Amino acid sequence: MTTQEIATLFKGEVVGDPNVEIRRVAKIEEAGTGDLTFFANPKYEKYIASTNASAILVSNGFDTTRTVASRLVFIKVPDPYVAFLQILKRVTPMPDPFPKGIHATAVIPDSAKLGSGISIGAHVVLGENVVVGANTKIGHGCVLGDGSNVGENSVIYPNVSVYHGCKIGNRVILHSGVVIGSDGFGFAPRSDGTYEKIPQLGIAVLEDDVEVGANCTIDRATIGQTLLKHGVKLDNLVHIAHNVVVGENTVIAAQAGISGSTKVGKNVVIAGQVGIVGHIEIGDRSVLMAQSGIPKSTEPGKIYFGSPAKDHHRAMRIEAVIRSLPELAKDIEQLKRSLEELRNRLSESKP
Amino acid sequence: MTTQEIATLFKGEVVGDPNVEIRRVAKIEEAGTGDLTFFANPKYEKYIASTNASAILVSNGFDTTRTVASRLVFIKVPDPYVAFLQILKRVTPMPDPFPKGIHATAVIPDSAKLGSGISIGAHVVLGENVVVGANTKIGHGCVLGDGSNVGENSVIYPNVSVYHGCKIGNRVILHSGVVIGSDGFGFAPRSDGTYEKIPQLGIAVLEDDVEVGANCTIDRATIGQTLLKHGVKLDNLVHIAHNVVVGENTVIAAQAGISGSTKVGKNVVIAGQVGIVGHIEIGDRSVLMAQSGIPKSTEPGKIYFGSPAKDHHRAMRIEAVIRSLPELAKDIEQLKRSLEELRNRLSESKP
Amino acid sequence: MTTQEIATLFKGEVVGDPNVEIRRVAKIEEAGTGDLTFFANPKYEKYIASTNASAILVSNGFDTTRTVASRLVFIKVPDPYVAFLQILKRVTPMPDPFPKGIHATAVIPDSAKLGSGISIGAHVVLGENVVVGANTKIGHGCVLGDGSNVGENSVIYPNVSVYHGCKIGNRVILHSGVVIGSDGFGFAPRSDGTYEKIPQLGIAVLEDDVEVGANCTIDRATIGQTLLKHGVKLDNLVHIAHNVVVGENTVIAAQAGISGSTKVGKNVVIAGQVGIVGHIEIGDRSVLMAQSGIPKSTEPGKIYFGSPAKDHHRAMRIEAVIRSLPELAKDIEQLKRSLEELRNRLSESKP
Repeated sequence: MTTQEIATLFKGEVVGDPNVEIRRVAKIEEAGTGDLTFFANPKYEKYIASTNASAILVSNGFDTTRTVASRLVFIKVPDPYVAFLQILKRVTPMPDPFPKGIHATAVIPDSAKLGSGISIGAHVVLGENVVVGANTKIGHGCVLGDGSNVGENSVIYPNVSVYHGCKIGNRVILHSGVVIGSDGFGFAPRSDGTYEKIPQLGIAVLEDDVEVGANCTIDRATIGQTLLKHGVKLDNLVHIAHNVVVGENTVIAAQAGISGSTKVGKNVVIAGQVGIVGHIEIGDRSVLMAQSGIPKSTEPGKIYFGSPAKDHHRAMRIEAVIRSLPELAKDIEQLKRSLEELRNRLSESKP
Repeated sequence: MTTQEIATLFKGEVVGDPNVEIRRVAKIEEAGTGDLTFFANPKYEKYIASTNASAILVSNGFDTTRTVASRLVFIKVPDPYVAFLQILKRVTPMPDPFPKGIHATAVIPDSAKLGSGISIGAHVVLGENVVVGANTKIGHGCVLGDGSNVGENSVIYPNVSVYHGCKIGNRVILHSGVVIGSDGFGFAPRSDGTYEKIPQLGIAVLEDDVEVGANCTIDRATIGQTLLKHGVKLDNLVHIAHNVVVGENTVIAAQAGISGSTKVGKNVVIAGQVGIVGHIEIGDRSVLMAQSGIPKSTEPGKIYFGSPAKDHHRAMRIEAVIRSLPELAKDIEQLKRSLEELRNRLSESKP
Repeated sequence: MTTQEIATLFKGEVVGDPNVEIRRVAKIEEAGTGDLTFFANPKYEKYIASTNASAILVSNGFDTTRTVASRLVFIKVPDPYVAFLQILKRVTPMPDPFPKGIHATAVIPDSAKLGSGISIGAHVVLGENVVVGANTKIGHGCVLGDGSNVGENSVIYPNVSVYHGCKIGNRVILHSGVVIGSDGFGFAPRSDGTYEKIPQLGIAVLEDDVEVGANCTIDRATIGQTLLKHGVKLDNLVHIAHNVVVGENTVIAAQAGISGSTKVGKNVVIAGQVGIVGHIEIGDRSVLMAQSGIPKSTEPGKIYFGSPAKDHHRAMRIEAVIRSLPELAKDIEQLKRSLEELRNRLSESKP
């Protein structure tokens, strides 16, 4: 593809040579001759002068006048990152790491119902009455428990464990080491200080278009179901406790954890290492900033930060004061001294 | 079972129709006709008016007069949740996800000692001289290293890894993805900035009735043993470092981590995402609240919160002041101005 | 070995019987007759009087006069812990948990290139064109994806998953449950609130002498590579996002997480449960204390603490004030009252 062809594709404009041939895409700091790169995050501005890329996607508003003398070709487009991703997909072959068909070492009972075009890897084990939909790929070493269910066009990477009875939708992606349907953490204390295990009789359900990062754990419900709704995306090492419900298109970053029976709304953004207590509701479209601890229900559309979490603007104002606390403490000491001095002067000034 | 039979079982009392037949149990917000539910957590009070359950377990002190006109039958019992769990176990068949016997694909050396009535899943690998007690179930894809040891009536879910030499007691439950006996994190710095690995020659020991949640990691000791004593319960993704000792009946919620050589007492409650430094002692029956960071030893029976953690009552008082810090900072500015004004008035008032 | 032989080995000095025979090593609180132990951490001083060890390594400056009457033999050396480790390695046989050769149940395509002296466990699966270097050991149940690459003398414990195309160096250690090369967490929002997956086309690279703890997750790059440089050491359950670079000899404690595209310098120390945002740079030799949240780039050699993190000394001063906030708030109330009182007195004193 030439720089002009790329510009045309996105209704953009070339500043520089329109006939440069693009063969690969690369990050701005790693790009070389023949590479297309992009500029979207201001943190990377320093690389524009030094990049070895042949062309760079920039936003329509980008000022190329100061740099137009360089041999770097600018392609102005409405959204450089989205355009970059489109070109990325065109020029980079997407490898398919799943072999065709069913491997001879897979253990598959007669009771399994398998769709057409599926891939089942080596040493996979399916329990009784497992259903796997058409074109779904199950990586080496995965275990799908009795009566579990996977939809169509889903991808399960190696060494995933799905417990009995759990249901996984269409176009779902589970990364390696994920555990779906492990027992919820429920124990009733006995009078002697020991605990009685509460049976965990529900299931875990992942609706369509859910993606779950490596080594996440999603517990089954005590009764009923733990539920990740359509389009939920989990990063790595996320913990979802029993009976949690996560709403449509909510994204949860790495190492966050949600305690039992909490209901998370839709289009929520939960940043890394956030912890949420049990039995509360997280409002739709709310944002929970990194490492926040959420002790009670949150309102829709609001941003929270801190442990325990507060409204984000309030938390920022509090944090600003916290940073000046040593000086504030000195101010208070000084105020005490000044007041004492005034008191003395006042006493002296009295006849 | 009828509502009266349930009431009689727990020495309770029926308010409403004593002859309603109960077929299933369900959560209050999901229950339908024929279902028994329960009310214990005040957060769920709003559902009492709207639930479709046929009967509800409530505590003896619950006031049914305002709602008694409804078709919902109330069963008053001393502890609604415990009663609910008992009925749950009676009416719900508990599936056994482990097939009988030893699967043909399991790799079991002649040196293994296997008890009667055990279940060993497909593609399990036992090392040399492994001992598995009677009626223990080992899920598909598990690996038990050389000389490791599992007691009787234990349950190990699929894809668990137990390193060589580790010892697991009776009635222990290990969920999928658990790693027992990985090397402790020990390195001696060399003068050139690189690190020399400290050999990890000890083992990890789990006593009877321990339960370990999905994808937890429990390191082996450098020398001696990492030890989880009787009845310890771990939620998912918990990290236990080398040479840690956790006392009887201590419960540790998800994503908490305990650093090397720390000794945790018995009947301690460690909430989610708590971090504990190494080489300290956590007193018996102490409670560490969510996301707390514990920098030094704690006293028995006390409650801690914060990072770094403080006595819980003190932490609550501090948090209350933190929430008003922006106003306090303004107060200090106002005090400075008022004082300056007073000082000026005093100077003027002097002759 | 006798106490004198040990002293001679480290150019040390025996205080007590030089002819005591040492057969084992043990921790100070667990040591018995015939055992050598060591004293390095002041927290363990209380055990010196009560230990049953036969001999103890202490530093050259240790004052033995108060205790020299005991039967415990002191061996003074420059570094007791390093000396202890040396003796540990001498007297304790290091077990090799990896069987020789290639297990019959391993799935190995003809396209694999395997070095001499390797160990490949049961139910291992190698993809197409995998390269495994000489003397490397791959534990039971591991999966190495198409085109992945492991160097010489590396050790991969059971149930590790390495995705296609990833590269692992020489003398690398991967503990059980590790996932290398899972997709980075990248999604482009669509206008309807759903997300489009950004293809993750790069790889993950681990250079020589890297060690990765149990159940860590290291994502592949979007483009280019996620990179752990020579000698990086990760504890358990650490999360490394896409396109992160970690410099030489940096150590990262358990449950820490690093967000996408962040560049961590060399010889950095990252403590447990630290979270680092994306697209920043962590300076060489900086230290990030436990549970810190790092919102922006850090300077080389500095120590940081807090969430959000501050310079460590500053954070300690702030924390000291935080601990006294309830009293400071009272001081401010008292100041207000005193000032009002003074104002009144001043008004009265005026004619």
